[in-house]
Amino acid sequence: MKAVNLAEKLSTFMEHWQPRTVGEFNGHDVMVVKVKGAFVWHKHDNTDDFFLILKGQVTIQMRDGNVTLGPGEVFVVPKGVEHCPMAEEEAHILLIEPSGTPNTGSAETAASRKLI
Amino acid sequence: MKAVNLAEKLSTFMEHWQPRTVGEFNGHDVMVVKVKGAFVWHKHDNTDDFFLILKGQVTIQMRDGNVTLGPGEVFVVPKGVEHCPMAEEEAHILLIEPSGTPNTGSAETAASRKLI
Repeated sequence: MKAVNLAEKLSTFMEHWQPRTVGEFNGHDVMVVKVKGAFVWHKHDNTDDFFLILKGQVTIQMRDGNVTLGPGEVFVVPKGVEHCPMAEEEAHILLIEPSGTPNTGSAETAASRKLI
Repeated sequence: MKAVNLAEKLSTFMEHWQPRTVGEFNGHDVMVVKVKGAFVWHKHDNTDDFFLILKGQVTIQMRDGNVTLGPGEVFVVPKGVEHCPMAEEEAHILLIEPSGTPNTGSAETAASRKLI
């Protein structure tokens, strides 16, 4: 059992929208991800979606309006709510989702989730 | 639905070892807490315990050894593992636990968990 340094984990990869799992917690994956540009509109019918911004600015677009987040800010997208994250410049996020949740909401288009 | 600024939430109280709930996620409370000194030895038989250090240094004492964490570092205490967090100077932590989990492992001695 050891500490997980999030910045150190983020330094090991460059790809955008490809979450890496850095820990596990009550059946959830604790992940870090680098993002830039717009993701795809999607929803998760069976899980909320936890975002904590570690670096940069991220806008969570939703059908009812947007929420813009900076470092040290948390937002939870409730289950079933369509959303499309976007970032004009590269941003880093801590994500928590049940293990195996496809990041696009669909197993067909989801990024593989590597453990690092 | 709005962003939760963790530093802003932390600025609203001064007490140590009194977690405040700032959001909810899949049946879990997302909490911030200020700590200083040693807590009590305890365990949670039915849940892992998620720590992300926001400020300062925290040592998670366990029977098999200690883990010391700084800002941007995550540690998950597995369910059933006895632990006693401590901090020589005031530190700030993001905690995630199932809603209603007593912070001491026992409902009799737990801090009330205020929503702010």
